[in-house]
Amino acid sequence: MPAQDNAQCHPVLIDGAWRSAQVSGMFRAVDPKRGDDLSDQYPMSKWADAELALNAAASACTQLRDIEGSSFAAFLRSYADNIESRAEQLIATAEKETALPAEPRFRSVELPRTTNQLRLAASAAEDQSWRSPIIDTDNNLRSVLEPVGPVAIFGPNNFPFAFNSVSGGDFATAIAAGNPVIAKAHPAHPTTTRLLAESAWEALVASGLPDTSFQLLYALDRDDGLRLAQDRRLGAFAFTGSREAGVALKAEADRVGTPFFGEMSSINPVVILPGAIAERGEAIADELAMSGLMGTGQFCTSPGLVVLWMSDTSEAVLDAVARKYQASPCGSLLTAGVRDNLATSVAALIEAGAEIVCGAGNAEPHNTFKNTVLRVSGEGFLERSEDLQAEAFGNALLFVVVRGDDEAARVLGVLGGNLTGTIYASTDGTEEDRYHLVASALRPRVGRLINDKMPTGVAVSPAMNHGGPFPATGHPHFTAVGIPASLRRFTRLACYDNVPDHRLPKILAL
Amino acid sequence: MPAQDNAQCHPVLIDGAWRSAQVSGMFRAVDPKRGDDLSDQYPMSKWADAELALNAAASACTQLRDIEGSSFAAFLRSYADNIESRAEQLIATAEKETALPAEPRFRSVELPRTTNQLRLAASAAEDQSWRSPIIDTDNNLRSVLEPVGPVAIFGPNNFPFAFNSVSGGDFATAIAAGNPVIAKAHPAHPTTTRLLAESAWEALVASGLPDTSFQLLYALDRDDGLRLAQDRRLGAFAFTGSREAGVALKAEADRVGTPFFGEMSSINPVVILPGAIAERGEAIADELAMSGLMGTGQFCTSPGLVVLWMSDTSEAVLDAVARKYQASPCGSLLTAGVRDNLATSVAALIEAGAEIVCGAGNAEPHNTFKNTVLRVSGEGFLERSEDLQAEAFGNALLFVVVRGDDEAARVLGVLGGNLTGTIYASTDGTEEDRYHLVASALRPRVGRLINDKMPTGVAVSPAMNHGGPFPATGHPHFTAVGIPASLRRFTRLACYDNVPDHRLPKILAL
Repeated sequence: MPAQDNAQCHPVLIDGAWRSAQVSGMFRAVDPKRGDDLSDQYPMSKWADAELALNAAASACTQLRDIEGSSFAAFLRSYADNIESRAEQLIATAEKETALPAEPRFRSVELPRTTNQLRLAASAAEDQSWRSPIIDTDNNLRSVLEPVGPVAIFGPNNFPFAFNSVSGGDFATAIAAGNPVIAKAHPAHPTTTRLLAESAWEALVASGLPDTSFQLLYALDRDDGLRLAQDRRLGAFAFTGSREAGVALKAEADRVGTPFFGEMSSINPVVILPGAIAERGEAIADELAMSGLMGTGQFCTSPGLVVLWMSDTSEAVLDAVARKYQASPCGSLLTAGVRDNLATSVAALIEAGAEIVCGAGNAEPHNTFKNTVLRVSGEGFLERSEDLQAEAFGNALLFVVVRGDDEAARVLGVLGGNLTGTIYASTDGTEEDRYHLVASALRPRVGRLINDKMPTGVAVSPAMNHGGPFPATGHPHFTAVGIPASLRRFTRLACYDNVPDHRLPKILAL
Repeated sequence: MPAQDNAQCHPVLIDGAWRSAQVSGMFRAVDPKRGDDLSDQYPMSKWADAELALNAAASACTQLRDIEGSSFAAFLRSYADNIESRAEQLIATAEKETALPAEPRFRSVELPRTTNQLRLAASAAEDQSWRSPIIDTDNNLRSVLEPVGPVAIFGPNNFPFAFNSVSGGDFATAIAAGNPVIAKAHPAHPTTTRLLAESAWEALVASGLPDTSFQLLYALDRDDGLRLAQDRRLGAFAFTGSREAGVALKAEADRVGTPFFGEMSSINPVVILPGAIAERGEAIADELAMSGLMGTGQFCTSPGLVVLWMSDTSEAVLDAVARKYQASPCGSLLTAGVRDNLATSVAALIEAGAEIVCGAGNAEPHNTFKNTVLRVSGEGFLERSEDLQAEAFGNALLFVVVRGDDEAARVLGVLGGNLTGTIYASTDGTEEDRYHLVASALRPRVGRLINDKMPTGVAVSPAMNHGGPFPATGHPHFTAVGIPASLRRFTRLACYDNVPDHRLPKILAL
């Protein structure tokens, strides 16, 4: 990517203006279904753009501190309206850039979810329910959660609306908590991101919030991304993406004590107890195949690891899933990189002892991988448990067939942190002891413990936890979904000691 | 410290028993006032002891999960009672090991504070106010804060009761939130720690909590400390101490995604506006000298940096403080290491451009350092701001004399995170604009913003924030003092999706 004339590419948004980027190169998105470059050209910014963005965001903090929650709410609502007004253009663009289907995925699910999140964040900005004020008049001492400072957001490839760095949950909650944002687009869908950012910009101008409230860059090289993560002007860093990139960014943020909220890796174990297999194995096989192939397995909560107790019935279920995997079309993956990583990850699982049940190779249509089912014994898993619990992001599933309860508990006991863990059990109450054994091993390792349904599907609810212990995320106390809790990621605790009323933030004054 | 016969030293408490340590060496505490070794001998444990402690704590988690809050409360209250029963022995021992005064410090302040914290934590364990349950019946989704897992606690040298790893705020809140503890004593006061741990042990046995609920080691070498911090069996790490040790431990915990709550460094800037100087400069000089020399400057919230506006009146205040510093006795420092570090830190400040007003050298009585006042211009500070804001833990104070509001704002603008920031302003309302300029620069950099009083003194109140941005602590969202908020450090968010009532934690069942 040699440096080129920046007039050939779309401008970035920094410091209240769409301006020519200071480019180190340019890129185009690729149509995942055909492999062709799409027409719009976007800048890879030099560090100088990040520097401008950091200064603009840092200076925005002071202004934003005095702005009422209702103004943030007005911006977020008007932005949601704008997204709805240009919904069809957004959907068509996202479909082209990601190969995910317009219907039902974008039109009926992801876009309404995105505007719903923006509106829920607006309500939280308005009702200030995230702030937890405490007033101790005896000690003349008050504390409250306050905005943490500029939030850098790097969004993922797999949700071009709901987790986009300029429209997703991180953006909505960082803004609702009063923070300026520095968003970096995912290079797989820059035009979707630009259309969203333009909608946000129109809403921002109309709302009267400072025009520095958010900045948009399209790409930074790896070193500049790491440099951004360790910049002391940042208040927090939000990242959704691969474990490799997340861990590298987290290390930089950690070094300077900047809170890092990363969603990085999750194999979402599904444990199917023998009683459930006996009772409704066929139905579970259907659910599992549907969940595992949804979005070509490119959901944060896709099931990647399934634990079964060795038996003929279990073999029948495994077989039924494999047949469904073979019979289903192989969906396009989001990018050529995703396919290459999936191929590498599946090869690594096989090297570590997993056997191929079906798939495990590139498929015919462009940018697809065969729907893949692998298996390993509980003993085999325990021998190479680190390697065998590595995420294979995409349409691949690893069954672990255990010899009994003890082995199951040992397998679950070596798992790292996950977003979800699921247990299917018989409904007649005959395997509650086994349920408790398994739940006891899973609970400390997962953010959300699920019973008798598949993990794909993340309700937008105040009770949701889309989080979990490392490496699922960077901190097990916080969630990326669920308002107002998800706003609290972007706050710091502030305390006022002996400060007279007229100098206090309004929420703490009597 | 060569390996020796472990019969010569006190046992450690691991896995429900006081047992001979697996020693790599032994140590005795030193009387800070005389430099003599005290008689009791304590073990430096090999890694094998840490390994045993980790396994015991990990297995305790499962048992603790099913225990009612009232049982934790009973333990904490009975422990507080035991401390009161042997108060005089504890006070005499702590006085010998730390050279801090029995009265008022230990008898009237720190010991009552410690038992108060234990009882407040007991109430929080009982009322479960830290858990924030959310029940969404529409989505059949529930979330709640749960214990995070084994908590390693490394306590500091400066509060042998209130921040001791077996009796302080970290211990009380980690236990109240249902976590097993692995405590490491501070080697400056092992006998105080042993007496506390014995009191805790008696209470534990009486309460019926699992006997693995806490473990006590006296010392680990540096490499084993770092190894402990990166052990995946830990749920969280709590540290109070030097920045150097804290940052090293934090890096290891961060690498494996273990939440690290460190209180590491704070110079607690005090800004005295010209109006306050003119109105009551003499009184402020008194307060400053008293606060700065309290506990020989060895408080987490000791003022270390004072900003004054250049004027004759400011010079008079600076001069008055220096006279008081010279006239006051030089208190014993906690250890020879503290004195050496203070000498090194003061020398580094001088090398970076600070001028000596008074002190800056070892004093006559054993283990004392001359009460030290340094000064630098605002311009000089800005040239070497990283070096000049390094903490000099002990009885040393650096004045920064600025030329006006702009320079003051620039000086404050380059400060890192601090526990507290204080502003003295005139009481007649004539310098509110200047107040807001200064407060605006300080607010994002401090955990607690104080008006018109010195920062020493940390009220135990739900509204307290004893925290702040890095390097004051490891995460600006959390506080180490203030119940129930301080319990939340030792929790993870847990969510239950479609889990039937009989399998839910009680607090989430309908």
